[in-house]
Amino acid sequence: MAPLADSFGACPVPKSRYDHITLGHGSGGRLSADLLRSIFLPAFDSSVLASLEDQATLPFDVRGGRLAFTTDAFVVRPLFFPGGDIGRLAVCGTVNDLAVGGVRPLFLSAAFILEEGLPLADLERIVRSMRQSCAEAGVELVAGDTKVVDRGKGDKVFIATSGIGIVPEGRNLSIHAAQPGDRILVSGTLGDHGVAIMSVREGLEFETVLESDCAPLADLTRVMLEACPAIRCMRDPTRGGLSSALNELAVGSNVGVELDENATPIRDEVRAACEMLGLDPYYVANEGKLIAVVPAADADGLLTAMRGHPLGRSAAAIGTVVSDHPGMVIANSPIGGRRVVMMIAGEQLPRIC
Amino acid sequence: MAPLADSFGACPVPKSRYDHITLGHGSGGRLSADLLRSIFLPAFDSSVLASLEDQATLPFDVRGGRLAFTTDAFVVRPLFFPGGDIGRLAVCGTVNDLAVGGVRPLFLSAAFILEEGLPLADLERIVRSMRQSCAEAGVELVAGDTKVVDRGKGDKVFIATSGIGIVPEGRNLSIHAAQPGDRILVSGTLGDHGVAIMSVREGLEFETVLESDCAPLADLTRVMLEACPAIRCMRDPTRGGLSSALNELAVGSNVGVELDENATPIRDEVRAACEMLGLDPYYVANEGKLIAVVPAADADGLLTAMRGHPLGRSAAAIGTVVSDHPGMVIANSPIGGRRVVMMIAGEQLPRIC
Repeated sequence: MAPLADSFGACPVPKSRYDHITLGHGSGGRLSADLLRSIFLPAFDSSVLASLEDQATLPFDVRGGRLAFTTDAFVVRPLFFPGGDIGRLAVCGTVNDLAVGGVRPLFLSAAFILEEGLPLADLERIVRSMRQSCAEAGVELVAGDTKVVDRGKGDKVFIATSGIGIVPEGRNLSIHAAQPGDRILVSGTLGDHGVAIMSVREGLEFETVLESDCAPLADLTRVMLEACPAIRCMRDPTRGGLSSALNELAVGSNVGVELDENATPIRDEVRAACEMLGLDPYYVANEGKLIAVVPAADADGLLTAMRGHPLGRSAAAIGTVVSDHPGMVIANSPIGGRRVVMMIAGEQLPRIC
Repeated sequence: MAPLADSFGACPVPKSRYDHITLGHGSGGRLSADLLRSIFLPAFDSSVLASLEDQATLPFDVRGGRLAFTTDAFVVRPLFFPGGDIGRLAVCGTVNDLAVGGVRPLFLSAAFILEEGLPLADLERIVRSMRQSCAEAGVELVAGDTKVVDRGKGDKVFIATSGIGIVPEGRNLSIHAAQPGDRILVSGTLGDHGVAIMSVREGLEFETVLESDCAPLADLTRVMLEACPAIRCMRDPTRGGLSSALNELAVGSNVGVELDENATPIRDEVRAACEMLGLDPYYVANEGKLIAVVPAADADGLLTAMRGHPLGRSAAAIGTVVSDHPGMVIANSPIGGRRVVMMIAGEQLPRIC
């Protein structure tokens, strides 16, 4: 339902006398309405959300364009980490899945699965962070739902977000579109999100705090597409990292990818942490980075445009699309070594997003 | 992401050698791709889903209409119950939230949160049921995601679905639109879903199996709106039951509601089960029923139209909107008694949907 009405109802209720989530907060009765009115409605300040209908009704002028639609579930552990939290992740992850398609994100929905006993203060903090991230991304959260599961049957908070936006007329970015000779750019340093999460979990301490790169990329992609409409494809290398994104590209376009390890931007602290934790940074998740595939002639212009944006300052050209070894990604080391970058098989970092 | 691409990647993989979900199935690597290819893509048979982009791109012609958008999370326990399962519920719940707004549902997304150890056979059964329900409802599932949580941090399967559809030009159903004199109709028997779930949980046995009414209502609402464009408002009385739906209406439209207990269709078995379990059927969830508010002059015509539809055969007029006692629902018993039907405060039936 849109404005959380199914779960919350519309009757006036006194301010909550609860500090923690109870099963009653998922009842569809007065406690649900209380949660809606005390936490969700004030946070998002959306007249559509507040209308309490079963569905959000939205002005939407496609005018020759198409609609884009995406969804993701978020189960990251811990809920709060340096550089972000599950709420920011849930907004940015879905916004970015739209943005890398060249889509202008417009509206989000959020479905919460709360574990009985969750402190309401944690929920409030998450919801505030979502509002802030929505504002940064220029999207409106217009639909929501909340369910509560009994203690021990969930893990504090899971969030599923969905997003819709407009695909401008004539725009057709696709992982099937890469061609031999194309250049592969990345918008910044790799591995920051995954290493930030793992460092918190493992209790690692470094001289500087390792922060997640979690950020909404819609403004960066807008600038990139204005500067370079010839972009073939963009991807956000989240779970599975750069490796999964490039392997999907190689298979999707039936091309080979040659990666220049020396050109790949990775923070020294992230490289050090990866060595300590036994991780390959190419497999580590990012939440505020993208790769772009672009005809060689446009690469320099695009790189300049990316570096002019706050979220693209460390952008770099890291590889080339080739006709050799289709479906395969090969990394070239500074000392002349070559290795196949396989798609990761199982789980390197569970619950990273 | 749309075609589960973020979570699954696109590289060719051998058929799964796993019978149960592992953490690796949530990695974004090869096991994720395996799950996508062996279970999700074959089930939904959608070219949009199979395109493996980060977002579904959809033809969408609004032409003066508006877009409707809704989301719900599903945590029902047990996963399989007489008359349905969590997959059918996840499709019907979201379809119905659109349908009761007079919206034509078009596209769905589904985000799965799976617990490590879930038998793959259970997931396949759920996904098949979703496909069947999508076909019944006339919607296409075009976007998905899967996350896996460690054993003991979830409960087998949670599903969050979102739906989008078109609101035809000039259609403005709203819980704020009821007027004194309007009649309140219900499309069939009340309490079937909640009682079916509780009977399974409590191990109750009756002479007949109590089945959930879980069904997609989009075709019924289409027929109703064709027969009676003057309908003011529709609602599906899910969590919180008839009581929550009518209380929301009374508050939303600032009117009173007079309910005729004798006219309320309730199966004998459901009534008996409610007595055994100490439940009030007005508070019990329905998953294939709706209430409609309609000007008195149109009530008979609408009732006839509803009864002509397979999902409205037991439709009945159950109440009247009044100007007295605004914000309050009062039930009138066959023997002349009057009682206030309050909105439920806490949790009567946890995890009913």
